[in-house]
Amino acid sequence: MAMATSAKEVQDGLEWRVRVPQGSLAVVVESQPDWVDRAWAWLTGIVLAVVSKAVGFGRKAWSVGSDDPRRVVHGVKVGTGLTLVSLFYYTRPLYDGVGGWAMWAVMTVVVVFEYTVGGCLCKGFNRSIATSTAGFLAVGIHWAASKAGEKAEPVILSASVFILASAATFSRFIPAIKARFDYGITIFILTFSLVAVSGYRVDQLLFLAQERVYTISIGVGICLIVCILVCPVWAGQELHLLVSGNLVKLADSLQGLVEECFMEDEAEEGKELPTAKSQGYKCVLNSKATEDSQANLAKWEPGHGRFRFRHPWSQYLKVAAAMRYCAYCMEAFNGCISSEIKAPEDVKSHLRGASIKLSLDSSNVLKELSSSIMSMKESRSIHCLVVEMKNGVQELQVALRSLPTDHVKKHRATLSLMEAMPLVTAASLLIEVSERVESVVEAVGVLARLASFEPSLDRKKASSYSSVVPQDESVRPQPQEV
Amino acid sequence: MAMATSAKEVQDGLEWRVRVPQGSLAVVVESQPDWVDRAWAWLTGIVLAVVSKAVGFGRKAWSVGSDDPRRVVHGVKVGTGLTLVSLFYYTRPLYDGVGGWAMWAVMTVVVVFEYTVGGCLCKGFNRSIATSTAGFLAVGIHWAASKAGEKAEPVILSASVFILASAATFSRFIPAIKARFDYGITIFILTFSLVAVSGYRVDQLLFLAQERVYTISIGVGICLIVCILVCPVWAGQELHLLVSGNLVKLADSLQGLVEECFMEDEAEEGKELPTAKSQGYKCVLNSKATEDSQANLAKWEPGHGRFRFRHPWSQYLKVAAAMRYCAYCMEAFNGCISSEIKAPEDVKSHLRGASIKLSLDSSNVLKELSSSIMSMKESRSIHCLVVEMKNGVQELQVALRSLPTDHVKKHRATLSLMEAMPLVTAASLLIEVSERVESVVEAVGVLARLASFEPSLDRKKASSYSSVVPQDESVRPQPQEV
Repeated sequence: MAMATSAKEVQDGLEWRVRVPQGSLAVVVESQPDWVDRAWAWLTGIVLAVVSKAVGFGRKAWSVGSDDPRRVVHGVKVGTGLTLVSLFYYTRPLYDGVGGWAMWAVMTVVVVFEYTVGGCLCKGFNRSIATSTAGFLAVGIHWAASKAGEKAEPVILSASVFILASAATFSRFIPAIKARFDYGITIFILTFSLVAVSGYRVDQLLFLAQERVYTISIGVGICLIVCILVCPVWAGQELHLLVSGNLVKLADSLQGLVEECFMEDEAEEGKELPTAKSQGYKCVLNSKATEDSQANLAKWEPGHGRFRFRHPWSQYLKVAAAMRYCAYCMEAFNGCISSEIKAPEDVKSHLRGASIKLSLDSSNVLKELSSSIMSMKESRSIHCLVVEMKNGVQELQVALRSLPTDHVKKHRATLSLMEAMPLVTAASLLIEVSERVESVVEAVGVLARLASFEPSLDRKKASSYSSVVPQDESVRPQPQEV
Repeated sequence: MAMATSAKEVQDGLEWRVRVPQGSLAVVVESQPDWVDRAWAWLTGIVLAVVSKAVGFGRKAWSVGSDDPRRVVHGVKVGTGLTLVSLFYYTRPLYDGVGGWAMWAVMTVVVVFEYTVGGCLCKGFNRSIATSTAGFLAVGIHWAASKAGEKAEPVILSASVFILASAATFSRFIPAIKARFDYGITIFILTFSLVAVSGYRVDQLLFLAQERVYTISIGVGICLIVCILVCPVWAGQELHLLVSGNLVKLADSLQGLVEECFMEDEAEEGKELPTAKSQGYKCVLNSKATEDSQANLAKWEPGHGRFRFRHPWSQYLKVAAAMRYCAYCMEAFNGCISSEIKAPEDVKSHLRGASIKLSLDSSNVLKELSSSIMSMKESRSIHCLVVEMKNGVQELQVALRSLPTDHVKKHRATLSLMEAMPLVTAASLLIEVSERVESVVEAVGVLARLASFEPSLDRKKASSYSSVVPQDESVRPQPQEV
């Protein structure tokens, strides 16, 4: 039947060709019935869309993987963990299907295996503690309910589930609990409900509890072994690298913004603007959530690499907050320099030298702080660099102070300030940024003290982060050291 | 034996009292053996610490609950959902303990029940889809492996678990997948591993799969019914309220900051500084994470209240981003006015009027935008308010322009600009804030169009968000309307 239809269609097409003899071969191809064309176009469209979607997705996946190959490694680690736990149970007679103990071990591996060691430890700890406390509490209430008689038993059990689940859920809104035990509370409610609602007798329950603790331990153990032994990713180290990397980005960005502001005319002659570099401060604006979660997870981690167990992770957040205060100011600076009012060239050249020097000084301070954090050594040159930055601030203030007299002489006084406004504001914000860099210096100083950074050779300058008065005026900063 | 020891100790105490007859009664009390004192002190310390900790925790919990009573309601809702699901299974003969089906329903309720309806729907959808696809995929692979012979079977199964778990885990790093399907992928891996590793035959598995889909549906159904029917919290509405509330905070904060800057002398005469009010912009700086997650969840929600299903939730994020740009500038402003350099009173009084007027104009625009979003009506007065704000900018620019001549006459020219600097910078940042307020106006205009806000009575002014040239110059803004 289908054959006959298609034969008829072909015939129709041919017939039509005969009727329109001036039609070319292209017309013959087009002469197929509409629905074939449309179906073909639709099919091609679908295939092309699917292929382009798949290619796009593949490219995105590739870039995600090549940006940080540890992500691929993490995928392989989870696969390994799961295979290990399934093999472990595959070879044991204890195993009895989906309802059996294997389930809890597999579930533990899937849920507890996190990207960072801290995440893994946090979830593993939460799961173990929550399961055991909820289990024993539920067994206790079960025992009490069973003494209360057959009629009262379901009432007592349901009421206890209701009250404990409500209270535990509410407690998740308390920030301190949310930050550390959110997952634990889910597991607490889960285990408590499961045990309380179950129809087992207390002695059976004790056996079950023992088995479950045993399987969860195996799951958590396998997770931790794979997570720590195979290319571990430490949340603490990530935070350390993030903060010191952001300091460098902030430094580059400050330099780039000031260059963009004062070098504009040269740029128009063909020199490319360092836009990508100067926008680095935006990373600092947007990294709060990452930093908070990494600091939170890092607290669960044991000592690793150069970090001991109680490394002052929360101080990194304070350094980051101080950096963000700089970044806010730089955002306002960025707004000022993209203002439409063109600054007169003489004002620009008047402020150029001092502004670029100050931006260099400030970014040298930031880079020195970054390398101090990175190497975990107290900086030898930081106090000189801060003094140099303060000199830079004064020089820029002098330049600003001498601006009106210079400028008033040449122009109508009424226009002078208005035209110079964006540059004056920019210079003023630059001074504000330098002041905020000082609070970054202080925060890093506290970090150096709390984390016992290796002292610099000159012990007298050990506290140089906070005292910025140079012991020896002849010591000049060496920015090329940075 | 213990009795004897303590009696001897008491005797020692007495004996000591006899030897030191000038000792008062206080000495007698102190004359008890050291360890009793220490134990007592330790015990009192512990009890006091526990009590004060408990009181502190109770206070915190109380404030969390009284800040937003819906949190308490959420706790009660979860309790109700769990009690319902447990009663459902308690009364059925199907029920057979922890390993049985009840477990999956209880687990679903515990894990899927989220604070917002969007969260609940997102997790419920993810859980259902992930369970079914992973289940059928695993059954298929199970069937294929069973055909491959007894030796190849475990190898095929383990390899498939390894490959799928690795790939799925890696895919969680792709941002688009992470945002919407993170939970689904966990459940996918979990279900696939459980089914693939299980020792059941294919026909048993199909029966199991059917049962599991059935129980999960019951769990998700109970969750959704309780979540939607009992005081529902809609993520979309929360986002809507957050954004319009933040606009008011930003407006108040701008007004407060400028008042603080220019009214300082009056404040010193006893008027309290509106510090809390002026720091409202910090809420805007810190609300990005909340907004992102709420917009993400709101997309899962059906139409509710005044919002239809495909309400343009992502446009709220753009409004919020534009607000954050204002807030960055206000942060820099805050830095400038807390500078140590005291501005001369004559400069201050010269700029006071225009600055306060501009801050009022800008905050009126922001408040009008807030009430437009809140009522979901296009604003009638917004274009007049924007024109008024632009006039305010020009007036402040005029004031700044006339500043040098006035000032140079009275003082030494070399100091004038330096002393006036913080105020000039502040005024300049105020102008920048007003320019950024315009991009908030544009973003809200796009929102009004996308969300089809109720048009204002005067249809000609419907597009007034983007075109800020007044049709009728005689129309003056009425800030008291806001």
